[in-house]
Formats: sequence, structure tokens, C-alpha cells
Amino acid sequence: MEKLIGACILGQSGGPTSVINASAAGVFIEALRNECITEVYGAKNGIKGILEESFFDMSKENPEELELLKTTPSSSIGSVRYKLKNAEDDPTDYNRLLEVFKKYNIRYFFYNGGNDSMDTCNKVSKFMKKSGWEMKCIGVPKTIDNDLSGTDHCPGYGSAAKYVATTFMELRQDAVVYDTPMMAVVEVMGRNAGWLTAAASLATYKGQGPDLIYLPEIEFDFEKFLNDVQKAYARSNKVIIAVSEGIKTKEGKYVPELFSNLEKDSFGHAQLGGTAQVLAQKLKEHFGIKVRAIEFSLLQRCAQHLASATDVNEAFNAGVEAVKAATSGVTDKMVAFKREYVDGKYTCKYELVDLDVAANAEKTVPLDWITPDGTGLNQKFIDYALPLIQGDMKAPLEDGLPRFAHLKKVLVERND
Amino acid sequence: MEKLIGACILGQSGGPTSVINASAAGVFIEALRNECITEVYGAKNGIKGILEESFFDMSKENPEELELLKTTPSSSIGSVRYKLKNAEDDPTDYNRLLEVFKKYNIRYFFYNGGNDSMDTCNKVSKFMKKSGWEMKCIGVPKTIDNDLSGTDHCPGYGSAAKYVATTFMELRQDAVVYDTPMMAVVEVMGRNAGWLTAAASLATYKGQGPDLIYLPEIEFDFEKFLNDVQKAYARSNKVIIAVSEGIKTKEGKYVPELFSNLEKDSFGHAQLGGTAQVLAQKLKEHFGIKVRAIEFSLLQRCAQHLASATDVNEAFNAGVEAVKAATSGVTDKMVAFKREYVDGKYTCKYELVDLDVAANAEKTVPLDWITPDGTGLNQKFIDYALPLIQGDMKAPLEDGLPRFAHLKKVLVERND
Repeated sequence: MEKLIGACILGQSGGPTSVINASAAGVFIEALRNECITEVYGAKNGIKGILEESFFDMSKENPEELELLKTTPSSSIGSVRYKLKNAEDDPTDYNRLLEVFKKYNIRYFFYNGGNDSMDTCNKVSKFMKKSGWEMKCIGVPKTIDNDLSGTDHCPGYGSAAKYVATTFMELRQDAVVYDTPMMAVVEVMGRNAGWLTAAASLATYKGQGPDLIYLPEIEFDFEKFLNDVQKAYARSNKVIIAVSEGIKTKEGKYVPELFSNLEKDSFGHAQLGGTAQVLAQKLKEHFGIKVRAIEFSLLQRCAQHLASATDVNEAFNAGVEAVKAATSGVTDKMVAFKREYVDGKYTCKYELVDLDVAANAEKTVPLDWITPDGTGLNQKFIDYALPLIQGDMKAPLEDGLPRFAHLKKVLVERND
Repeated sequence: MEKLIGACILGQSGGPTSVINASAAGVFIEALRNECITEVYGAKNGIKGILEESFFDMSKENPEELELLKTTPSSSIGSVRYKLKNAEDDPTDYNRLLEVFKKYNIRYFFYNGGNDSMDTCNKVSKFMKKSGWEMKCIGVPKTIDNDLSGTDHCPGYGSAAKYVATTFMELRQDAVVYDTPMMAVVEVMGRNAGWLTAAASLATYKGQGPDLIYLPEIEFDFEKFLNDVQKAYARSNKVIIAVSEGIKTKEGKYVPELFSNLEKDSFGHAQLGGTAQVLAQKLKEHFGIKVRAIEFSLLQRCAQHLASATDVNEAFNAGVEAVKAATSGVTDKMVAFKREYVDGKYTCKYELVDLDVAANAEKTVPLDWITPDGTGLNQKFIDYALPLIQGDMKAPLEDGLPRFAHLKKVLVERND
């Protein structure tokens, strides 16, 4: 088989994680040493950077800074939330992409993100195949939500899960400090899948977690919720509750939706938030005690200082695998993780799954991993999640603070 | 001088920190090996535990678990917020304390906390002196607020400052990820002193901090605030703002007070919170863009996983020094820190200051450490704070999660 020689480009897309840059490091470092790849580009703000012909020449970066990307949270070359229309409805963007790919002889397209990003990658892949432009398109998974289909788990999840579990353990220590009643409702990210909220159960497994955990996989019933809290409060006057931002009622209403109208983002997803606050207020009214609302907010997705070494390494390897697969002729796939146990020890194998599988199908927490009362997780989840949070790998310290990568971000000159 | 032989008791009081247990470890470990001390008690929920004759026999604990207290956040024997009345107005509590002290031959009283706790310690010390009960009373400082007088800094501050600075750096990485406008108002604890909020400037010093920092030391003017934000927004469409929960207007009004009535806690302090939310809402209305409100909430005071090794060690030593001072005959003092530079290298010396000095006097950030426009800190603050956040010292990991101390908490039998 003749080797496909040309430039490659990586786009980062969707919300940040602690390890999306680790995957970028994997792609860049592998691509820079790969003989099939002539130029290594990083798209400024994902697909938008390609449409706008705005990308960085990664060969201009200091190799040590590329190494530091492994422990630099968020998307250093910039991310985007941009939904490509269907090519049949409006081919404008696709034609423009093709034009840019041709102009710079870009033959390798790597796209790193979650469901929506895999949808983008899939659409680009299918269009380029049809157009006749020979190109290898590989998706690199990323999402703290852990909801991509076709993979055991997603890079970004382990670190966010470690943050959630550790922080719940610390909150438990804090909560028990006074002998007066204490309730806290803690809101965790996860729109339609409860994976990240479920990670709170790892703290419960260690005896120091929330008393109640509510996932979007289970219909939220406010009366049952009050009843659950009442029972927990009868057992102890300290009650900590983990709620996914995405819990919704039988009628499909999110908690804050019951009180105000929600804005939608450019993918048509409702902008969530406020679930903890609404519930805390309701509990306060009901029990007549102080109830704290705590939102992990952006912290849970960028707390690199609590990254799981397992996650960082797998994220990096996913980037490397993407380049290796593409340059060996594979296209239209996403790198996926397969869990194996060797002598009872967790290991991660890298596979390739069809982009069609990964794009836009959300994988949720299996219902039989949730306790019958719908307020906790059973051992199946613990066994699943525990290997993913092992090991520490944080940025080196400088002045006692993280030393993140400093990229030069040299824009490629537009050779018009 | 004849040695005073008897039992000792430690009370933890006020809000948790990442290192208050490190000071407790210092007191317990030193007291257990000290020949003057017959019994080592830990008061259940501070002064309340003594009044209620409810305390733990610390000699029953596994020494390894006492060691683990160094890296266990919050107050493991329980804390309290309880204000002693003046003895002249109502001696009931004091007479009861004296009764308990006599009953158990408690001759050493250690009290670990912030301003209000030093007030308690001071009152107990003065009353016992007057009563003729020979007793050594030593305060051990603790507060993330860093606002105790008579000491260069307070145990708990370094770790909280490290959390704040690190988290702002991570938030900056997250904030710049999209090319769309982004504003965030981040609320940091600190009722009347801006020390902890000021720690955000350490992130700015590293080039990755908030654009604007508002401390309670400077009168808050909403019009000026809008103007400051406008200017920052003109420079970059990403604006991160750090606000102390305690910022107030010339008229002495806290930001949320302008909108709703506040409850007061048992010390008469207003229960704050909501500053970020109110300001974010106002900015959203003004600029017409999405503005996030982020509250560090309890996380900033219990995030032991980000503890400063300098802070942990100093906190432990403060406990040790308290016992050493008391058993050598000192009373009515608080352990204080004095900063020295040996060959340009920061070192901490331990001193003793009068409890009168420490009790109820709040030390605020010097005005000449704040930039002229009132929205940042200058090099004086950086030089002050940087040594306090050096080194990592977190709990050992078990299953990838912190292994905190497990105390048996064996209650002393009431020999009625």
C-alpha cells in the first residue's frame, strides 16, 4: 500500500477536561516524528480554525512545552462549540473545509472531543470520502461525561471522577465538624448521563461520601426526594446529597426548569445549573435548617492538580494511537478503550470503532448498577470506576504553583 | 520551679481548615510523651465538650492514626461556634468549666481556632487565673482568613491560599478555551480581611490569574466596579474577577444585603454568600453576555489534597510548641509565627504573644500592598504569601483516594 503523505491537523472541541491536552500532546508528538506527516497543525478553536484558515504550526513549539501539555488542563489551542449542518442541507462549510485541506495538502484530520465533536468528525469524514479527497479522519474521545458509545470509558472521565470522589470525601470531613444539623446539596456536571455524579459513590465506598446520589438515568420525583432526605436525616443530622445537573422529572423537566425558563446553547442543549440551589432552598423550607448549595462548576473539569495518572496516560496514548492508525491507512474511526484484566489487574487496550457508533449516541449508566432505591451505586460501578482514578500525575510545581505549558502558538501564514 | 502535673485538654473551634488537625496532632503527640501531662483529652466540639463533660481519651488512639491527622482536613474531634459571655455578666459557663477542670484535674487548656476562639481562650485563661485554679492556657492559631493579630500568618492560610491560587490558574486555562466572550465572578471566603482573596494574585503573578481582585479592605463601589470590568473587557473578552465574600460599600452594606435581608450567626456575624451571584447577574444585564458565578464554598477550607507542606508543618509545630510552652510554665499566650529570612530563605520562628493581643482584633491586608486602583496586589503581598504555599503534603492514597485518619474517639467515662 502506498503511504499517504501530507499535513495533519488536530482540532480540540467541546468543554475542557484535565487531559484533553494530553491527547493533543499524543497527536503532536507522534505526528512530529511520523514520516508520513509533513506538517503538524493545531486548529485554533477546532473546526472553526480550519474554516477560518487559522491554525498553529506545532513544529515551532519547544518539545518540552509539548511534554508539559500532558499536565496542562483545558484546550491549549482553543476549543469550539460549532455544529456542522448536514452536508445535504448546506454544503458550504464542507466545501470550505475541502478547499483548506487541499490548499495545505492536509491528509490527516484528528478531532478530539465528545459526542458533538465525534458527530463533526463523522460528518467531515463522510464528506471527504465522497468528495474524493483522500484523507484519514480519526476521532479521539474526550469527555468528563463519559457518555461516548463504543468505548469502555472516555479520557477526561477518570480525572474528573477522582476530583469528585476526593472532594466529596473532604466535604464529608467538613460537614461533620459541628454537632448542629448540616445539609448540603452538591451539583455535579453531566447532562444526560450520570457517570460523573456516580463517581461520588467512590467516596461513599470509602465511608465518607454523600448519603444520597441522584443520576439523570432515574426519573426525579421531588416527593420521593423529600422522603429520601427525611429518612437520611433521621439516621444522622448531617446529610450530603449529590445531584447531577441533568436530573429531570417524568415529564422531562429539569429541576430549575420548574422555576424559570432556560436558555439553549448552539447545539440546542439547555444551559443547566441551579439544580443544587433550587433543591437546597426547598430543603431549607421543608426542614427549617441551613442547607448549603455547592456547585463544582468549572472546577471539576479543569482541576488538573487532581488528575488521575491512569487517565493522563490513556489520554496521551489515545492521541498516539490515532496518528498510528491514520498513517497506517485507517480512516473513519474513533480510538476506543477496551478494559482487560491481566492477573486481576486492570489494563487498557486501544481499539478503533466506527465514527458512526460514537457520534451522537449517548451511553448512560446501566440501570442495574444503580441501587434499587435509586439513590446510590452498587459494587458494579465501584469495580468499573476505581481503576480509572488510580495514580497522581499533576503539573510540575514552580513557586509552589502548577507550571503549565506555554505555547508560542505561531499561526501558519496564509499563503494567499 | 515545681512542675505542674495534670491532665490536658484540646478544643478545636471555628470553621475547618486543611491543617487544624495537624495542630491537634502536634498537641496530642507532644502531650502524650510529656511527663507533666497525665491524661490527654480532646474536647468533643470545643468548649461545648468541656461544658458537657464530653471528651475523648486520646491515649486510646492508634499512634499511626494520630500521625494521619496531619493530613486529615477539618476538625476530627468536632468543632463549635459558641461565644462565652463575659464572666462578669454571667459566670455560669465559667463555674462549670472550673468544676470540670477540677474534677479531672485538668491543668492544661489548649484552644485551637481563630479570632473568636482566641477570645474564648482568653476569657477562660483570665477567669481561671482569678479563680485560683492553677492552669496553663495556650491558644493555637488557626484560620484560613489569616486575620489574627500578633502573628505573621496563621496556620490554615497557606493551604487555602494555595488552593485559591492553583484553582484560579486552572480556571484561567478553562476560561480562554472558546473564542467567545467569557466572564466569571469567583467568590472567596474572608469576612473582613481579604487575605484569602488576595491569594488569587499569586495566580496573576504567574500570568494566569484574575484580571480584577476586590478585597473588603477597599470600599466597594458598584459604579467603579462596572467601569473596571468595562476596561478589562476592552483589553480581552475573557474577564475573571475575584471577589471577597466580605466586600462592602461605603455605607457598610454587603453586596447581597442590597438585595435581601441576611441572617446572623451566633457571633452576630452576617451569614454571607451570594456576592458572586449578584455581581454576575448585574454584569450579565450590563454586558449582555453569559457570566458565570463560581463560589469556592467549603472546598477552599477542606481541600487537603492541595495543602501546603509549609503550612502543614508549621501547624503541627504550633501544636507542639503550645504544649512545650505550657509545660514549661507559660500561660495566657497564643503561639505566634515570626518570619525570618536566613540567607534569603524563608524560615518560621515560633513565639508567644499575649492572648489579649490575638483575641478579637482582626488583622487586615495593609493598604499599601494593594495597587492604587484597588483591583490587585503588589509585590509586597507576593513576597509575603509565596513562601507560605510551598511544598505538597497530602494524605496518603488508598484506592486512589485520600486515606484520612480514623479515630476511635473513646469518650472518657464520666466518673459521677
